[in-house]
Amino acid sequence: MFSFITIGGTIAFAASGALAGIRKNLDIFGVAVIAFVTSLGGGTLRDILLGQFPVKWLLDTKIVVLIVSVSVLTVIFKNKINKLDKTLVFFDTLGLGFFTIKGIEVGVGAGLSWPSCIILGTITACFGGVIRDIILNEIPTLFRKEIYATACILGGFLYFLLENFNFLKDYKEILVFFVIVLIRFLAIRMNISLPNIKS
Amino acid sequence: MFSFITIGGTIAFAASGALAGIRKNLDIFGVAVIAFVTSLGGGTLRDILLGQFPVKWLLDTKIVVLIVSVSVLTVIFKNKINKLDKTLVFFDTLGLGFFTIKGIEVGVGAGLSWPSCIILGTITACFGGVIRDIILNEIPTLFRKEIYATACILGGFLYFLLENFNFLKDYKEILVFFVIVLIRFLAIRMNISLPNIKS
Amino acid sequence: MFSFITIGGTIAFAASGALAGIRKNLDIFGVAVIAFVTSLGGGTLRDILLGQFPVKWLLDTKIVVLIVSVSVLTVIFKNKINKLDKTLVFFDTLGLGFFTIKGIEVGVGAGLSWPSCIILGTITACFGGVIRDIILNEIPTLFRKEIYATACILGGFLYFLLENFNFLKDYKEILVFFVIVLIRFLAIRMNISLPNIKS
Repeated sequence: MFSFITIGGTIAFAASGALAGIRKNLDIFGVAVIAFVTSLGGGTLRDILLGQFPVKWLLDTKIVVLIVSVSVLTVIFKNKINKLDKTLVFFDTLGLGFFTIKGIEVGVGAGLSWPSCIILGTITACFGGVIRDIILNEIPTLFRKEIYATACILGGFLYFLLENFNFLKDYKEILVFFVIVLIRFLAIRMNISLPNIKS
Repeated sequence: MFSFITIGGTIAFAASGALAGIRKNLDIFGVAVIAFVTSLGGGTLRDILLGQFPVKWLLDTKIVVLIVSVSVLTVIFKNKINKLDKTLVFFDTLGLGFFTIKGIEVGVGAGLSWPSCIILGTITACFGGVIRDIILNEIPTLFRKEIYATACILGGFLYFLLENFNFLKDYKEILVFFVIVLIRFLAIRMNISLPNIKS
Repeated sequence: MFSFITIGGTIAFAASGALAGIRKNLDIFGVAVIAFVTSLGGGTLRDILLGQFPVKWLLDTKIVVLIVSVSVLTVIFKNKINKLDKTLVFFDTLGLGFFTIKGIEVGVGAGLSWPSCIILGTITACFGGVIRDIILNEIPTLFRKEIYATACILGGFLYFLLENFNFLKDYKEILVFFVIVLIRFLAIRMNISLPNIKS
């Protein structure tokens, strides 16, 4: 189940990265790098901040092949994949929930305090997109629009809150996952976003 | 005394980062990330280059809370804080001197040569602002304007020069601190900057 | 021989970085940082991803002095160095071949799979320029134009292919070097590039 979500999330992140690269008229190599960075950049940044080396994808050839394949397929079928927008958003949202929990638990495993764990969860789920935007010469969408990181942060608080309720403890992953996914879906559906600060 | 300067410097770096984020109309999450990166990015980059993990702020929840608080307060009182410009510059300059020395001494502690230590001091004090500008889609101010890194580099040379004068050795930190602060203040006061290279 | 190529390649990378900084009218400090990042950024990123610390140039004061000298000379003689364009491209291409092989062999030494080694070779040779472009607020040239990373990747495949031919094994470095250099020169000469993906 969870490995299905990881793979679906990775593919969705990679495809959305590839589409962003195509929109900037990169070549196939550039498109593949952006797909890579979008889908693995958050976890890579987390591993670097924690000092867990080599970063995981260097040891996992399958994920490299997967992302290159997604990039090539996205380039070939770009019009069709663009039309799959709803499917992509669906898997992107599952990925958001899953990668947040993964980041939190890596932090817990490293013995960090709960605020640091929430930060690591948010970085894991969201900062691939930040690096993508920096490379593509845009101010990161994550900092300007939509409820996205907010869902991860709220999910993170819930994670540590549930630790205190014995009868819910064992269900915390599944509950946090659904809350993050729910917040994100509602935000998209109702078109809610954090207000931009006026200067 | 020095911990007063660390806190003052961290707050000044965070507030100036938050103001830069507000100027780009980010949302509150984006403003907080930019504040974070501006104030902790230089030290984080130093720790990564040296291989000292986990990076320090992951173990120091207080500094995370401090920066988030500064961000929220800056957003609420943005007009008032903008008027505090001189106070901010004052603490920013103290921070510049202090963080340079801290970076140098981390390098010394790692057994590095003096040029590498000066580089680490400069990175610690200045490269948070560089990362801030990269994220905000600007060519880093540090590379184009004003005497800022120059003050750190000159202070760094002085640090290692004073090592050779027995009677001054014990005062080197305080002397270097005042020289960096002095150079920076004079540069601001007299509006001196490195000339831009004409292409 | 190879140390001649390392130095020539490092100088060429640094000089091209310095020229890019001059074109953006940075000051001398900014020009030197861009030269630094262009020539050492790829290897630094490789060392970080692998977890080999401190990153090498912190232990090698000579290379720091070399790059600062190249930066200063490039600023002083910028018109003359601009005219040396063909010499720069020559050494840049030698550097491309050499740094790719170095990156691959660092990966092999760390026990990584061949796809990861090819990625590390490409990062070592090409990603200094990517970081340069990100700092200078451009979409990386590497992702949009010319055969550059492609030469490294093809060279990387050849490297691991030759492992299987006993009689060629000992010559693999020299063969890969020449193939990368040849592909790059032909691409420049015949003005070949990967097609940009139309969005």
